[in-house]
Amino acid sequence: MAEVRQRTTQSSSPRREELKAAAAAQASESEEDDIIGQPNFQAAGDQLPQSSDKTTEALDSALKDLTPRWRNWVIRGIFTWVMIFGFAFIIYLGPLALVVVVFMLQIKCFHEIITIGCLVYRSYNLPWFRVLSWYFLFASNFFFFGESVIEYFGLLLSRTDFLRPFATYHRFISFSLYVAGFVGFVCSLVKKHYLKQFTLFGWTHVTLLIIVTQSHLIVQNILEGFIWVLVPVSMIICNDIMAYMFGFFFGKTPLIKLSPKKTWEGFIGGAVSTILFGLALSYYMVQYDYFVCPTRYDDEKDHISMDCERSPAFLLAEYNFPETLRAFCKLVGLPQTFKMYPFVLHSISMSIFASVIGPFGGFFASGFKRAFKIKDFGDTIPGHGGIMDRFDCQFLMATFVHVYHSSFIKIPNPQKLLQNILMLPADDQVRMFNMLHDKLVARGLLLNNTAT
Amino acid sequence: MAEVRQRTTQSSSPRREELKAAAAAQASESEEDDIIGQPNFQAAGDQLPQSSDKTTEALDSALKDLTPRWRNWVIRGIFTWVMIFGFAFIIYLGPLALVVVVFMLQIKCFHEIITIGCLVYRSYNLPWFRVLSWYFLFASNFFFFGESVIEYFGLLLSRTDFLRPFATYHRFISFSLYVAGFVGFVCSLVKKHYLKQFTLFGWTHVTLLIIVTQSHLIVQNILEGFIWVLVPVSMIICNDIMAYMFGFFFGKTPLIKLSPKKTWEGFIGGAVSTILFGLALSYYMVQYDYFVCPTRYDDEKDHISMDCERSPAFLLAEYNFPETLRAFCKLVGLPQTFKMYPFVLHSISMSIFASVIGPFGGFFASGFKRAFKIKDFGDTIPGHGGIMDRFDCQFLMATFVHVYHSSFIKIPNPQKLLQNILMLPADDQVRMFNMLHDKLVARGLLLNNTAT
Repeated sequence: MAEVRQRTTQSSSPRREELKAAAAAQASESEEDDIIGQPNFQAAGDQLPQSSDKTTEALDSALKDLTPRWRNWVIRGIFTWVMIFGFAFIIYLGPLALVVVVFMLQIKCFHEIITIGCLVYRSYNLPWFRVLSWYFLFASNFFFFGESVIEYFGLLLSRTDFLRPFATYHRFISFSLYVAGFVGFVCSLVKKHYLKQFTLFGWTHVTLLIIVTQSHLIVQNILEGFIWVLVPVSMIICNDIMAYMFGFFFGKTPLIKLSPKKTWEGFIGGAVSTILFGLALSYYMVQYDYFVCPTRYDDEKDHISMDCERSPAFLLAEYNFPETLRAFCKLVGLPQTFKMYPFVLHSISMSIFASVIGPFGGFFASGFKRAFKIKDFGDTIPGHGGIMDRFDCQFLMATFVHVYHSSFIKIPNPQKLLQNILMLPADDQVRMFNMLHDKLVARGLLLNNTAT
Repeated sequence: MAEVRQRTTQSSSPRREELKAAAAAQASESEEDDIIGQPNFQAAGDQLPQSSDKTTEALDSALKDLTPRWRNWVIRGIFTWVMIFGFAFIIYLGPLALVVVVFMLQIKCFHEIITIGCLVYRSYNLPWFRVLSWYFLFASNFFFFGESVIEYFGLLLSRTDFLRPFATYHRFISFSLYVAGFVGFVCSLVKKHYLKQFTLFGWTHVTLLIIVTQSHLIVQNILEGFIWVLVPVSMIICNDIMAYMFGFFFGKTPLIKLSPKKTWEGFIGGAVSTILFGLALSYYMVQYDYFVCPTRYDDEKDHISMDCERSPAFLLAEYNFPETLRAFCKLVGLPQTFKMYPFVLHSISMSIFASVIGPFGGFFASGFKRAFKIKDFGDTIPGHGGIMDRFDCQFLMATFVHVYHSSFIKIPNPQKLLQNILMLPADDQVRMFNMLHDKLVARGLLLNNTAT
């Protein structure tokens, strides 16, 4: 979120090693504390790699005359653009490339949060536990990503002999994987560390709940159509930047205690900019099939395709102006209706969520960081902190878009129902056809002139 | 799980009040501790209502001459039978009554775990937080139970004008409810209590994950057919009782450190008994349509029905004995095949899970209780502890049965696909029919003699 933080330059690697050794020594001395399970903030604050403004020598010398505020602003700005260009390049590569990127970001986010948990609750003497956390990440990804693959490419999987059992028994395999981890956890319980182990078990599961389930929704959004991710992600970025800019230049009235640098001016400026930006971006993107078509396996052409018959949300529709405005239009001779893509109007709901509720994802992350007395989730992006610092609002936004899409846009898809029928055994397909035929005749929707 | 615990008789209510007052006083003195967020076991251990052998005056005087070990055994035995008869009565009432009971048990389990969390992390000064926990319980139940209702009775809902929007926008409403809670949580953050609040937030969510999601699976199992819940639940109970009996009479070799009273003799005796019991019970139940038929809304008769065409798992099938045994049977003139209901054979897998993996649910619960230095989750059932003490293994078992059922039993149900099609708008139904027709003709499964 848009915050200006004063940061001291620090060199990363050697200091970290030194601190780790010191902390390990301290840990072996303070076994007593371990048993109590009291969180250790000092260890976390010292050891966690924190965001720094240190970038390259060249950039450093170029910026050395600036005040820290401006210095931070410039570095943040540069890396914002680096990220925007990276993002644009991924758009160029296509939806499946973005799925891979989401997958990698998810792993990095998980890593950042688990690292904090392990440092705070000092799990040096539980190496087995860290392995278990990663195992749970693997098992839950196997489950969730598998579900998406089966949902979108089930027909393709059911054609390949080798993959068919994975599709059919996917849930059973996932559950077995999870249960193995669960049994492993129970077996790894050590009397002295019960509390710590259960705390970290909970920590791992809450992290999985936040990161894995939501990134799985992002993947589903991507497969429903590139635009369902690109527009919301851009909205959050736009809101972030504009709230920061408005706050930086006009900010006076504080907004919320959790994030003291946030102001009402930034909040309102951000919201208005996001709505305008969202309308413009949607209107631009909705023109291209590349952005609006879902990624599907095409049974006939036998390849993954992004050609589609546009869904109604992406076709021009005629809207009436509200009653009073219409009367006025009639008076002055203007048209009383306008044509627009429904998606562009839906973008307003998304913009409002992105700028009103979205920031709460950031407040939540801020509160979390304050609770565990850390400044950033990591030091992955210079000037920005960890990946989680940048993606705190994206997760909530993705869930909103997913729910919004499945509630208001996704009509029960005849195409997908058809796919499900075609995955049945051959005689069931015919049986299904006959049952449907009889029902439709009974409902008077079909004449009874058909026989099989 | 089968454990003998020495318990001291204690009178419940007045002592509890007294302790609560003392703890509250202590809490207000030790603000410093609160900020650190160190868990307070003393408070939990003292205040949490713990299981007692105290029952009624009459029973007490009848049992007063017994040694504590036998006394505990008798009380436990009596209340085991009380529970078994209660369970039988619910079976008599039918699947929808069991859904209501599961719902109530789930609320009680949630209450037990949240109470422990609130006591351990001393949340007296966060009354708002307890409300939030219950709100999250409400929101997640609204979501999960709603999903089940829509899945099984969607056609019924879509017929009632008043309920249709709930069915259509169910996910959006659920998400809005959750987001309201999330925003409430962020707004309720108080600087001094950040750590405690985030810890309890995590605690609430892990509890929801364990209790609500899994009890939702139990509900789905019930609706898939009464037998899918009755057999597994009975298996766990049988394994519990038999492992306890075998352990009590023959137990010598300790099994696992977590539960020192568990023995290999109990484990093996329990497993063998459970498999035999499972076979017998399945064979008995599978005879009755009442147990094997799913609960469905019948479109034609316009009521919820439990009549069905039996699924293959409940129809006699012919099995070959293994090769070597077959040769022997041929020699001595015995039949080489046998007829059996597939479900009875599936019951073996369930028995094995119930007796091998099931207990790990109990070990996990034991470890949890040890971690937080409590003896029981509550005092709901005399001689047994809280509801959670009795249901620790049931949750894991229900998830297994759900996954097992959906992987190996539930064939993509033409009946349900048909229901989904019939929920589409009328012209989509016809369009769907034509698409299916063309596909089947293309695949050579249908002659092209039909026209609409």
